[in-house]
Amino acid sequence: MVNYPNGKPSKPTDLVTRKQINSKIEYGKRGMKFEDEIDRTNQYYLQHDIAIIHKKPTPIQIVKVDYPKRAKAVIKEAYFRRASTTDYNGIFKGKYIDFEAKATQNKTSFPLINIHAHQVNHMHKVFQHGGIVFVLICFSSLEEVYLLPFEHFFVYWQRYLNNEKKSIQLKEIKKDGILIPYTFLPRIDYLKAVQLFYDVSD
Amino acid sequence: MVNYPNGKPSKPTDLVTRKQINSKIEYGKRGMKFEDEIDRTNQYYLQHDIAIIHKKPTPIQIVKVDYPKRAKAVIKEAYFRRASTTDYNGIFKGKYIDFEAKATQNKTSFPLINIHAHQVNHMHKVFQHGGIVFVLICFSSLEEVYLLPFEHFFVYWQRYLNNEKKSIQLKEIKKDGILIPYTFLPRIDYLKAVQLFYDVSD
Repeated sequence: MVNYPNGKPSKPTDLVTRKQINSKIEYGKRGMKFEDEIDRTNQYYLQHDIAIIHKKPTPIQIVKVDYPKRAKAVIKEAYFRRASTTDYNGIFKGKYIDFEAKATQNKTSFPLINIHAHQVNHMHKVFQHGGIVFVLICFSSLEEVYLLPFEHFFVYWQRYLNNEKKSIQLKEIKKDGILIPYTFLPRIDYLKAVQLFYDVSD
Repeated sequence: MVNYPNGKPSKPTDLVTRKQINSKIEYGKRGMKFEDEIDRTNQYYLQHDIAIIHKKPTPIQIVKVDYPKRAKAVIKEAYFRRASTTDYNGIFKGKYIDFEAKATQNKTSFPLINIHAHQVNHMHKVFQHGGIVFVLICFSSLEEVYLLPFEHFFVYWQRYLNNEKKSIQLKEIKKDGILIPYTFLPRIDYLKAVQLFYDVSD
């Protein structure tokens, strides 16, 4: 359904580039911090029986495995693969929830190159099937995190596909999204924002 | 919540054994076939816009990555980790769906050692949160696949924890579960069984 913008063909392989891996396994301090904070938030939700939301493991293509005697198996050759879904999903108040989380160092806009077409396709389908879908966007330099509901995100994505704008302006995110204030526990209480925007009743 | 039966302590590490990996990455023909059939069924559901259900990637702990110049990154050392959730989840008719799929060569019963306590804990939580949860059990020698709803599975799991019986008898599965006949497309139409058992309306 969705092609890469600017007429660029999508890559023939789903193996990811070094730059993508770096952002994937989060060598960047900021990225690490954001993903870590979401993980802790999800642990909090789990421990307090609020929601069951997990991060999906990074997809890996395994080529070679060694089985040393009396030791655990060692993967000796493997490659990163591109995910075909978002990173997080689960259940909240009986509803299916699905989201992607991305951090940017940019201070005024969120570059859409951070999100893959596969993931948007996936989110779009989930949205059509009645799931709660959104993108969590962290402006690391500003220390601000926003929840942008998919229905709003998708308008900007289509603008991107039409080669009109490569990013979503922070002021647009402020208008259409919900600021999630940092709290002590949980760190990023995104389900509070979900409850503000979506009809989720007990 | 749930401990291993027979008073055996759970292993101090979540790294899995060779035997578990073999069953995990499905060297066994039967296992491969079953997992493959579920994957194809899920693809069918996706293509026909029936449901969005994906298998989660196998969790891997990455230790060493090489970045050869002008080539894709290579994982040189990594280990299998035990999953903390089930293998499959997604959305069907707006509902959260979550299940584990297991094959056995056994002809008269399903040995519960095939399922990890972590996974049962996860399924139990999802069940309490109103998700549709079940186990798909494939008796490969008989070429029969059953859907066993979690609420029934859990009774047998508790019997297992009480050291009463290490497996679920096929006749018990026939009584409490639903036989999923093999069809051409999709191969294992488990959502038809879901609709027979659960209240899922359009």
